[in-house]
Amino acid sequence: MCGIVGIVDAGDVSIPIYYVLYALQHRGQESAGITTFDGKKLFKYKDKGLVAEVFNEDILQELKGFAGIGHVRYPTTGEKIAENIQPFSFSFRGRNYAIAHNGNLTNGYTLRDEFEKRGQIFSTTTDTEIIGNIIADELRKSNSMEDAVLACMKKLEGSYSVVFLSEDKVYAFRDPLGIRPLCIGKTKSGHMVCSESVAVDALNGKFIRDVRPGELICISRDGLESVQITESSGRGHCVFEYIYFARADSVIDGRLVYDVRRKIGQALHLEAPVEADLVSPVPDSGIAHATGYSESSGIPYREGLIKNRYMGRTFIMPTQEDRENAVRIKLNPVKGHLKDKSVVIVDDSIVRGTTSRRIINIIRETGAKEIHMRVGSPPLKAPCYLGVDMPTREELIASDKSNEEVKESINATSLHHVSVESLINAIDMPAEDLCLGCLTGVYPLWIKGEKACPRYLDFVGGTYQSNIKEFNED
Amino acid sequence: MCGIVGIVDAGDVSIPIYYVLYALQHRGQESAGITTFDGKKLFKYKDKGLVAEVFNEDILQELKGFAGIGHVRYPTTGEKIAENIQPFSFSFRGRNYAIAHNGNLTNGYTLRDEFEKRGQIFSTTTDTEIIGNIIADELRKSNSMEDAVLACMKKLEGSYSVVFLSEDKVYAFRDPLGIRPLCIGKTKSGHMVCSESVAVDALNGKFIRDVRPGELICISRDGLESVQITESSGRGHCVFEYIYFARADSVIDGRLVYDVRRKIGQALHLEAPVEADLVSPVPDSGIAHATGYSESSGIPYREGLIKNRYMGRTFIMPTQEDRENAVRIKLNPVKGHLKDKSVVIVDDSIVRGTTSRRIINIIRETGAKEIHMRVGSPPLKAPCYLGVDMPTREELIASDKSNEEVKESINATSLHHVSVESLINAIDMPAEDLCLGCLTGVYPLWIKGEKACPRYLDFVGGTYQSNIKEFNED
Amino acid sequence: MCGIVGIVDAGDVSIPIYYVLYALQHRGQESAGITTFDGKKLFKYKDKGLVAEVFNEDILQELKGFAGIGHVRYPTTGEKIAENIQPFSFSFRGRNYAIAHNGNLTNGYTLRDEFEKRGQIFSTTTDTEIIGNIIADELRKSNSMEDAVLACMKKLEGSYSVVFLSEDKVYAFRDPLGIRPLCIGKTKSGHMVCSESVAVDALNGKFIRDVRPGELICISRDGLESVQITESSGRGHCVFEYIYFARADSVIDGRLVYDVRRKIGQALHLEAPVEADLVSPVPDSGIAHATGYSESSGIPYREGLIKNRYMGRTFIMPTQEDRENAVRIKLNPVKGHLKDKSVVIVDDSIVRGTTSRRIINIIRETGAKEIHMRVGSPPLKAPCYLGVDMPTREELIASDKSNEEVKESINATSLHHVSVESLINAIDMPAEDLCLGCLTGVYPLWIKGEKACPRYLDFVGGTYQSNIKEFNED
Amino acid sequence: MCGIVGIVDAGDVSIPIYYVLYALQHRGQESAGITTFDGKKLFKYKDKGLVAEVFNEDILQELKGFAGIGHVRYPTTGEKIAENIQPFSFSFRGRNYAIAHNGNLTNGYTLRDEFEKRGQIFSTTTDTEIIGNIIADELRKSNSMEDAVLACMKKLEGSYSVVFLSEDKVYAFRDPLGIRPLCIGKTKSGHMVCSESVAVDALNGKFIRDVRPGELICISRDGLESVQITESSGRGHCVFEYIYFARADSVIDGRLVYDVRRKIGQALHLEAPVEADLVSPVPDSGIAHATGYSESSGIPYREGLIKNRYMGRTFIMPTQEDRENAVRIKLNPVKGHLKDKSVVIVDDSIVRGTTSRRIINIIRETGAKEIHMRVGSPPLKAPCYLGVDMPTREELIASDKSNEEVKESINATSLHHVSVESLINAIDMPAEDLCLGCLTGVYPLWIKGEKACPRYLDFVGGTYQSNIKEFNED
Repeated sequence: MCGIVGIVDAGDVSIPIYYVLYALQHRGQESAGITTFDGKKLFKYKDKGLVAEVFNEDILQELKGFAGIGHVRYPTTGEKIAENIQPFSFSFRGRNYAIAHNGNLTNGYTLRDEFEKRGQIFSTTTDTEIIGNIIADELRKSNSMEDAVLACMKKLEGSYSVVFLSEDKVYAFRDPLGIRPLCIGKTKSGHMVCSESVAVDALNGKFIRDVRPGELICISRDGLESVQITESSGRGHCVFEYIYFARADSVIDGRLVYDVRRKIGQALHLEAPVEADLVSPVPDSGIAHATGYSESSGIPYREGLIKNRYMGRTFIMPTQEDRENAVRIKLNPVKGHLKDKSVVIVDDSIVRGTTSRRIINIIRETGAKEIHMRVGSPPLKAPCYLGVDMPTREELIASDKSNEEVKESINATSLHHVSVESLINAIDMPAEDLCLGCLTGVYPLWIKGEKACPRYLDFVGGTYQSNIKEFNED
Repeated sequence: MCGIVGIVDAGDVSIPIYYVLYALQHRGQESAGITTFDGKKLFKYKDKGLVAEVFNEDILQELKGFAGIGHVRYPTTGEKIAENIQPFSFSFRGRNYAIAHNGNLTNGYTLRDEFEKRGQIFSTTTDTEIIGNIIADELRKSNSMEDAVLACMKKLEGSYSVVFLSEDKVYAFRDPLGIRPLCIGKTKSGHMVCSESVAVDALNGKFIRDVRPGELICISRDGLESVQITESSGRGHCVFEYIYFARADSVIDGRLVYDVRRKIGQALHLEAPVEADLVSPVPDSGIAHATGYSESSGIPYREGLIKNRYMGRTFIMPTQEDRENAVRIKLNPVKGHLKDKSVVIVDDSIVRGTTSRRIINIIRETGAKEIHMRVGSPPLKAPCYLGVDMPTREELIASDKSNEEVKESINATSLHHVSVESLINAIDMPAEDLCLGCLTGVYPLWIKGEKACPRYLDFVGGTYQSNIKEFNED
Repeated sequence: MCGIVGIVDAGDVSIPIYYVLYALQHRGQESAGITTFDGKKLFKYKDKGLVAEVFNEDILQELKGFAGIGHVRYPTTGEKIAENIQPFSFSFRGRNYAIAHNGNLTNGYTLRDEFEKRGQIFSTTTDTEIIGNIIADELRKSNSMEDAVLACMKKLEGSYSVVFLSEDKVYAFRDPLGIRPLCIGKTKSGHMVCSESVAVDALNGKFIRDVRPGELICISRDGLESVQITESSGRGHCVFEYIYFARADSVIDGRLVYDVRRKIGQALHLEAPVEADLVSPVPDSGIAHATGYSESSGIPYREGLIKNRYMGRTFIMPTQEDRENAVRIKLNPVKGHLKDKSVVIVDDSIVRGTTSRRIINIIRETGAKEIHMRVGSPPLKAPCYLGVDMPTREELIASDKSNEEVKESINATSLHHVSVESLINAIDMPAEDLCLGCLTGVYPLWIKGEKACPRYLDFVGGTYQSNIKEFNED
Repeated sequence: MCGIVGIVDAGDVSIPIYYVLYALQHRGQESAGITTFDGKKLFKYKDKGLVAEVFNEDILQELKGFAGIGHVRYPTTGEKIAENIQPFSFSFRGRNYAIAHNGNLTNGYTLRDEFEKRGQIFSTTTDTEIIGNIIADELRKSNSMEDAVLACMKKLEGSYSVVFLSEDKVYAFRDPLGIRPLCIGKTKSGHMVCSESVAVDALNGKFIRDVRPGELICISRDGLESVQITESSGRGHCVFEYIYFARADSVIDGRLVYDVRRKIGQALHLEAPVEADLVSPVPDSGIAHATGYSESSGIPYREGLIKNRYMGRTFIMPTQEDRENAVRIKLNPVKGHLKDKSVVIVDDSIVRGTTSRRIINIIRETGAKEIHMRVGSPPLKAPCYLGVDMPTREELIASDKSNEEVKESINATSLHHVSVESLINAIDMPAEDLCLGCLTGVYPLWIKGEKACPRYLDFVGGTYQSNIKEFNED
């Protein structure tokens, strides 16, 4: 998963981009990068580490220019190597470009092969370089950014929200299904596009709207332009952005994420009520869900686990044999709240089950009487091919275990996952506008070896036939 | 403020001390240090920065030994210079010692002068070096650690919780009023003393009890020994540890800090009820108080402000002119929760009023209808001389402003601080066992120019007359 | 200027490459990089800084593999940006390659344009990426490395010594004029190619021979193969390698560099004898020439200037106004050797004259009676387009000043540059095998706006017509 | 060994001290430190590493003040721990001091014990802290710096050149035998004291004179004052400063070090002539000696070994089994100069013999016919207790081996060490003014278990009886 931003403004944009990347840091902690353009040349800096570690005032000073893009990265494809840190910059016919991308192409290997057949070499292993090549290839033919993005959308399969710095302009586009978020904001004297609305808030900007699936936005000092490149007969917004990935204070495709989570929490109470002394989140991801459960049930909200806030990326974890106990270095159970008590513990999801088991164990050791686990997502049954870093099917505890079996495995008194229906209700969108792939195993586009229920695309201004394959019953 | 720890165990203690310092990181983020003893020599490492920044696996490997002490520091006395980073180590008569200290001596200058009259030089500006000198001076005469600590307690005025590494033993003692916390734990195969019980939890140890005011503890491989050096006719536990400083999940002098804060929150509701749509903490310090207010009032607990968790020490803040807006880079108001709503905002304390005003401003800009500020401490009216880094009387907004004036200044719809009585009730100790200096201007020991209500001391095994001055009515 | 190396050996090559790069450090101090191949994948690491700063044991451990290439860089083309650090690695048709290059293409912009017309994007501004593209483009068509290098030699103009890592093989080739050095060595259990013979010595290897101009070498675990791709009717070895750039202990194209310099020193005495008390080099570049002058003249060799050996790259130099004096921080004049003495000072070359003037000034201040400057190169009159970082014509003091004028400018008692004839004699090659461009303004190949006396090429195995332009009389 | 400096000037002294420490870097590469005084307070910075690594412009900017001292260190006593880095700063009776020291006390333990008996603690293991204590102790009694230094000279045994920063004054003194060098210079607008005259040159200052043995110098903005604290009936200048330690371009106690070494080289030829093709130094320490041999013999001076100049402190050396070959990574033999040749190799000294053997081996492998080793010091037979880091008697190859045995051991064709007589002639001082301890085993002061031939002291202005013990015949 990644976070992206593009800004064109009256003054220098490096510091605003810095604050935006910081607001989007939850979308990627492995590396950060900024590329700017000052009317003459590109300035760029990127490195491994958190935003606050990668940049300092000297570096930001040197990143001159009124137009720029930025990126924070948690790698999904490609190795963890320095070349893969984004933005990816390149020169083409005497002009300089930079590109950053959030998502995952499902036909990356095919596209790469196509270019290599023509003699093209690749210096990174990222999808981003592929997108850069497609755009350059099309610009060569038509010199039109619209045609280039149209070409991209015809060729790319998968999820992609892209920002593209072309000298004094920032282009941004979102895949036809709108899988990953992307929104538009107005700053005091310019415009921005970014992964989540919290990044607009960070600059005290005005949220305008989400980028529409299949839309191309161009921001320049002259303002904002939009072209709808494709229309799709349905969407495929990722539900996991609502459940876990996005920040609770973001508004994505019209929904406040915190509200969605709170409603999930309420549904968890209505679907699986229990008598208890307190409702505690697993911090931080379960907090919003837990407030919903508390509100609906009337059981007091009280933290049963306190998270240590000082864990840096260089923190040394205990050795493997101590891992079962190690969770308590991050999360301390509040014995005074838990001993002899019935407690509802709310978390956003269960992936492998290991962390849940460890958390329940340290709560049990305090002398808690009953531990009722409530989970803000339906059981995870299938992998994600569209940008969320999830393990293989075999590693997902719910892929082959019943609720009862998972409950036993994690040693909870009771366990309940929210239902898919309640999740959809909480998001308040038609099911056909959501990607539920990891919950149902049915994806909104064709993925080799998986079931798909794809949406059809119309390319605006043409009679382009969808390149998304037929429903693939296996 | 500082955090301290001492451990003697079967195996190497550097990694346990590392985890403990990490658990105590909230007590000091400026520097960290560890000194160990392996039966032959001292090993030491200390530097500026967070625990996770200062140490790495190679460094911890080289800190060999089964006995050791550690320190995290937020400077109260002394300049921010490298020499002042603790533990302070010294050699004396062929033996090596190390010492670390939490607190603040009120007669540090006098003591320093006394030693200098004898030709003693000082290489740091810390109280810790003074304490080291007193101990060495006494060891020279009597060779008894008990006599040395007795001498300390007779000479030192102020607050001091001390750990002292004397080759294979760790001594620990706490000032006669017990101003700063210090507690004892049992690890799997050894013993530990540390500032707060969460540090015992971090090692999955067993909490034994607090070190008593005036008590000397010695831990060695042979176990734990205790000598009560003085008895005081009263105590002076710092109330600010309960209000703000200690971790919510710590148990200090028998009280779970979270519970004290929750009861304060309940009292805030009872003392100043209001109708509102939600109760939101100022994260993180107001969370426990806010859950109490929500519980007592039935108004839902819901976060109106989301804190960005990735702010490192090198994070670049906006320039001064942008500061009013800058708070939103740390704290994002959740517009969807606040617009057109009446909201109760709960924080732990108001110091200068600047932060409260900024927070209320960014909430107001979301369109909140009413903003009711509730504060978990009584108004701060006087400085702290005993280890909490607080501004001067002039800078404390409540020192010369009425509640109404502060309310206007911070632009709240209503404002209420918890009363001193409710605070004492929530802590559930006799008022004469607490230091309420910052709230009342009356201190438990004599401080030049301030009112004092000192407690009398009896030195065990002697008829020692208190060196605490008479009540000083001015 | 740059230094390059390629090794294929029985065991891991990262540490041998590290020692080689260290031996070649004089050829480039700005950045260093190593890429290796372990039979499955590429490992790479590169960064700004000296070899000893860039690499440590952990990094070298992770650079696994029995085949690898390395590079040290002093930038001639391209900006000083991180992307430009070599080796440049790329993937193509599922295979991974890396390439490093010493030299400078004179038709880089034309070639870049040609590729961009086909839609190719460039992620660096180096010649190296161009060479990578040409090779990949040809491999696509013919899958033959020989054809690919033949295509390179037909297309590339300028100087290039290249190492190319293609999985388990290292290819190396040198431009048809042999402008930059490249030689072959045998290690205990493998083979190597490298810029200078000192790198073979560093591994206690056996020097085999220089790579021939226009030759392609392939080293693999099976040994060494050679194909002569082109034959040229003359060569264009850079004389500045002998005068200054190469290490004195290197043997280049059959000549020990130290010997060439010593003979230049002898010629300097024969051409411009003088009575003096001592002969002193400007350290380090004038040492070998000075020993020759001393030997020929019988005047004792004695250091009049002592160089400080501890100047790191982060050393802070005095501010501009102090620069005239600043040279003495690097070079201390030995007053006891110089006062009231006649001294012959020998340096390798005079570029702008500034340094010579400063050096003579500080010698003069010691009270030296006469200062006779002797210079190991003929006057520099024209720029270098082939890889040596030299200033523009306007900045070269000898481009428009007579010997007398330069002597006055640098404040010497007398001044003599070695003659071109004596230089050629000292190198002991036919003039038509040397590039004397910077001394004569006539270059061995066509360069826009300059006179050329190009050599004709025959591509072996074909009747290829030279792409080197006709003699360009202007 | 260490290098020290003190400056009082019109403007800020941090940058001048930086350049001086850089000029003295050869005296200690382990750590560097500067302390300054700006009229109000001390500023200090010190760390492990070379001068150019420890300091940068920001740090030097913050070291404000017109008076200051500096230190570079190669540890002789005390562990390599951060606390031991000099200058050592301390406060005493409200004033701040700093002290730095070159030398080694032979009664450090006794003095330390004396202070500890009074309750004094030590925070470092350096002699410097002891000297600081003696001065403070005396200042306490008399408040006179002269008395304090007199007390020092009465108490301290061993070698000590000291700079002492007392607010706006810098005091400097040298032990009564003048074992370590210390000299005085005049800067443009102030004064300086420093270990060697090259440091005066580095600031383009004027060398005034050496500090006299037993003299106390005080430099302030008012100029320079001197008090002769003691007179000794002889001196004990370290011969190893002339042979190896000092920079060749320094003038120490009136002798240009380069000249001394050159005369040693001439003596080496006269004592042990040989027919050969070239004279080569072992760089850099044998260069000056080799020029003398060449001059006296008429055999050409030519480098047979080229030293790599880029070895940083982080350079990774080959593993133990490769050490025999490893020397060639630092020193490359110039095969073209050596093959089939008779060569005279000149080095400054032979300590353990290991390096000489390795160097001769790599020369032999080039095919050299004869290798005649000439050594610029007499055989080293005893350890140094006075500040030079030398191995124990057992490790010194010449302590129990004849010249013939050493020659065999290092595999030379012939071997000659300069005689003690010629060394004394070259230095041109009476033998009784030199410390020849490491050559003769007889020291100029009493050292436990060693022979001594001490000089007697008179304390000026008193009838003080020497504290140097009687000649100790064993």
